[in-house]
Amino acid sequence: MMRDFTNDHSALALNTASLGHNLDGAGAGWSTERVIDACAERGFGGIVFWRREIGARAVQIGERARAAGLQVVGLCRTPFLVGPMAPRGHAAVMDDFQAAIDMAAALQAGVLTIVVGGVDPGSKGVRDSLQRVTERVAEAAPYAAARGVKLALEPLNPVYGGNRSCLTTTRDALDICDAIAAPNLGVAIDAYHVWWDTDLPRQLARAGQRIFGYHLCDWLVDTQDVLLDRGMMGDGVADLRGLRQAVEGAGYTGACEVEIFSAAHWWQRDPAEVLDVMVERFRSLC
Amino acid sequence: MMRDFTNDHSALALNTASLGHNLDGAGAGWSTERVIDACAERGFGGIVFWRREIGARAVQIGERARAAGLQVVGLCRTPFLVGPMAPRGHAAVMDDFQAAIDMAAALQAGVLTIVVGGVDPGSKGVRDSLQRVTERVAEAAPYAAARGVKLALEPLNPVYGGNRSCLTTTRDALDICDAIAAPNLGVAIDAYHVWWDTDLPRQLARAGQRIFGYHLCDWLVDTQDVLLDRGMMGDGVADLRGLRQAVEGAGYTGACEVEIFSAAHWWQRDPAEVLDVMVERFRSLC
Repeated sequence: MMRDFTNDHSALALNTASLGHNLDGAGAGWSTERVIDACAERGFGGIVFWRREIGARAVQIGERARAAGLQVVGLCRTPFLVGPMAPRGHAAVMDDFQAAIDMAAALQAGVLTIVVGGVDPGSKGVRDSLQRVTERVAEAAPYAAARGVKLALEPLNPVYGGNRSCLTTTRDALDICDAIAAPNLGVAIDAYHVWWDTDLPRQLARAGQRIFGYHLCDWLVDTQDVLLDRGMMGDGVADLRGLRQAVEGAGYTGACEVEIFSAAHWWQRDPAEVLDVMVERFRSLC
Repeated sequence: MMRDFTNDHSALALNTASLGHNLDGAGAGWSTERVIDACAERGFGGIVFWRREIGARAVQIGERARAAGLQVVGLCRTPFLVGPMAPRGHAAVMDDFQAAIDMAAALQAGVLTIVVGGVDPGSKGVRDSLQRVTERVAEAAPYAAARGVKLALEPLNPVYGGNRSCLTTTRDALDICDAIAAPNLGVAIDAYHVWWDTDLPRQLARAGQRIFGYHLCDWLVDTQDVLLDRGMMGDGVADLRGLRQAVEGAGYTGACEVEIFSAAHWWQRDPAEVLDVMVERFRSLC
């Protein structure tokens, strides 16, 4: 009972990182407005922004996207909550967490993504850091709920376990959701991060309505850079059809968000061409 | 009830990859005999070789190691059984698998490590490839048993899922062990590959006597190269004490094998110094 995208890509959303918008100086440098228009012209249904491109214009950009016919599916992202790349100290983390929630609310973004950060300096293994993540998300969840913002914990590929995400599996993400039990807290499932996990179908069934996001790209067999060499759908070895079947089998009916960090390949190409390829691959392979 | 290594490192084994012996041209280029003597002088209890350094001298090197007082704990490794880096075709894979078993038997090595290889070309996801791995290991297991060789399936960090190991979790490795049910088939647990896995304690308890190897190194927070930038114990974020507690809690009483691929750091140093650091870290931190 999977949705049929062959002739309908209204579920397709662009994560602007696919055009390099997550990093200063990356990509072709199109304005946010130009990206919105290019997506709308091609029949995308939604868009996901990064905080760095929004600045103080959250209300304006949100309205601009909706006027063009695009849903603002999400916002990337909270600060790292723990680990070596997190802001220093609890107050600094929570202040920036709230700023991210405020921006998501102003954008009227469907979901704010949480990337939790790595292992806290001085500790060993992931357990203590995951406990601190749980405490901080529990503290932020009511603030987000009061502003109509849903929070999605995104497990990252274990290769990032040390520096970017001590949260590496959907199982661990759902354990945190269970512990906090906030209605506005769920998970984001990204093909790049979970494609290898044979436990995933069971975890997605467990997740049910708590799947708040589904991210597409591909895992290249010979990944050159674990951060910035993601593949376009179809160019790698992820079983994207099987993955979507499991995600939709759990009840997910939301957007499919294409998020491809690709400094050496896709960010070097004309964004118009990248978007065209995305639509074609989405319809035929995802 | 963990073993106390503070004043006793007889359980310590050197995997010669820690001196670059897994790759042509890497490391200081000490002869195998010199490495054996250096380990014996420092009170190591065992050693693990790579096929490339053994060549046709398996019987001789095995006897040399034992004469020096070292157990030959293991041999690295089988060919990749599936995936883009495997020998082409079933017969070629199985021939080299048998050659690896023959060498392990000639060395009187305790265990032959299996690194299974990545996703088979033309397929998507890991399931089909894991099924083929299961078939090939099932076929080789009796051949190994007849020669007194134990086989250890080693799950690798998911970052290698595409090219080197579609087997990424201890859970999947034990599922294959369950399916084959050969008494000489078990798993190897390597800190680098499993340190992030919160499901590990449960899986190790399930493994019980099927833990055939325990490998030490560390996961560096800012790993520069996922293949050749492993850390010395204590320099990263793996919870090595917790890991050994779980491994020994399952009943493991065997060697602790230090396997550090480190092209830019440890392979550049005097092997004598590397071995001294290893002993100190093993006694104080592992």
